[in-house]
Amino acid sequence: MKKISLYLDRLDAPPGDLSTKLHGFLMEQLDSSYVDWLHEQATNPYAMKVRHQEDLTIWTIHLLTEDCQRQVLPILLELTGVNLVKLGTVGIRQTLLEDLTADNLLKIFYGSNSPSVFTLYFETPTGFRSQGEYVFFPSERLIFQSLMQKYNRLMEGTEYLDQELLEHLVEQTRISSYRLESSYFKVHGKRIPAFRGRITLRVRGADTLKAYVYMLLRFGTYAGIGMKTSLGMGGIRLETRED
Amino acid sequence: MKKISLYLDRLDAPPGDLSTKLHGFLMEQLDSSYVDWLHEQATNPYAMKVRHQEDLTIWTIHLLTEDCQRQVLPILLELTGVNLVKLGTVGIRQTLLEDLTADNLLKIFYGSNSPSVFTLYFETPTGFRSQGEYVFFPSERLIFQSLMQKYNRLMEGTEYLDQELLEHLVEQTRISSYRLESSYFKVHGKRIPAFRGRITLRVRGADTLKAYVYMLLRFGTYAGIGMKTSLGMGGIRLETRED
Repeated sequence: MKKISLYLDRLDAPPGDLSTKLHGFLMEQLDSSYVDWLHEQATNPYAMKVRHQEDLTIWTIHLLTEDCQRQVLPILLELTGVNLVKLGTVGIRQTLLEDLTADNLLKIFYGSNSPSVFTLYFETPTGFRSQGEYVFFPSERLIFQSLMQKYNRLMEGTEYLDQELLEHLVEQTRISSYRLESSYFKVHGKRIPAFRGRITLRVRGADTLKAYVYMLLRFGTYAGIGMKTSLGMGGIRLETRED
Repeated sequence: MKKISLYLDRLDAPPGDLSTKLHGFLMEQLDSSYVDWLHEQATNPYAMKVRHQEDLTIWTIHLLTEDCQRQVLPILLELTGVNLVKLGTVGIRQTLLEDLTADNLLKIFYGSNSPSVFTLYFETPTGFRSQGEYVFFPSERLIFQSLMQKYNRLMEGTEYLDQELLEHLVEQTRISSYRLESSYFKVHGKRIPAFRGRITLRVRGADTLKAYVYMLLRFGTYAGIGMKTSLGMGGIRLETRED
């Protein structure tokens, strides 16, 4: 998986609004048959994150499969500017390329001394759909279900979700502290209920479970958590520590 | 129901710690047979709230039944100081007495033009017990279940909870925004998971339902919400507005 961050001249609009515009711009650059194929996927093989930082706007695109890397990376690396509806063209000041391989993830999974305390920073509005309803509070179940689903679909190519493992994860982890606030995300004029902030997750139980949680969450720093990660929702940053 | 606020010289300890100390002090002032009776109640007929404000510590005691008023109010009104373990004696600078009668509540219930947007400020750590577990996120269900239970027990003297009405309330209200953080509450060395902050509740549907919600929440400003309100948890402040 590749993570490419484009450091743009600061754009004068909220990150949420920019997200959908930047997504539109990205789609315009891609081969139209690939765009059509993307529209059919239950889990998109890419995730986005847009943040402001001082005089910069940082647009991060995570490319989650090799196929998606082949299709998108060369185009992103050749960009010298970004052209957005109503906002005009902005220059790219810097490009940062990072990598997280399937091998890196497996090393985490089979490694010893995994941390057991995980702080997740929800840097962009994050939300879930559960039983047909929007949910804008996190829970252990919603977080791990989302990550397992994305991991299985993108890394293993399967729709199968191990419910027993999910139950076990939910039982053995708990949110031990949090600071969160609601933050709606606009998509095509619709306001999706979401939240931002941080939670700390503690994992009890066996080292293999901690390692599995660590792997899922590291994967989550690329894939995002919850709904509409391709449009810029669910972008997280992870900090870990021993208990 | 009476609300008595004692404005004390600022005490140098966190409000949560002071809460249990002040509760202990209060119990010492009461008739021991009344204290024994209190220990047997599923819902205590009083609730406390301790806050710091500039150079003051404000200790608020809500007396929720007439019997409790008779037992406790005269004693509180005669106090000139409060004597706490390890902290010594502090003077009472001012006493504020407020009132919310059953009649006031009925007027809200039968009144027209009830507000439909309610902002609850959880001023002291608030938590719930649900299915044997501590819950430190609020939900529409947990809030209304707690308020209906307290209202029925204290105001109507019944354990009966109208599940159908509760379902209706949960369906017709939603938390539309929030800003919350976890905040543990210490009781006898045990840390109870809780939260502080604010939520905004919106009520759809009939005016009678809005009026019922308004009445329950006004009652909640005296009775508190959730667990251990007698020890100083679940203290709320309410703001209302039209949609």
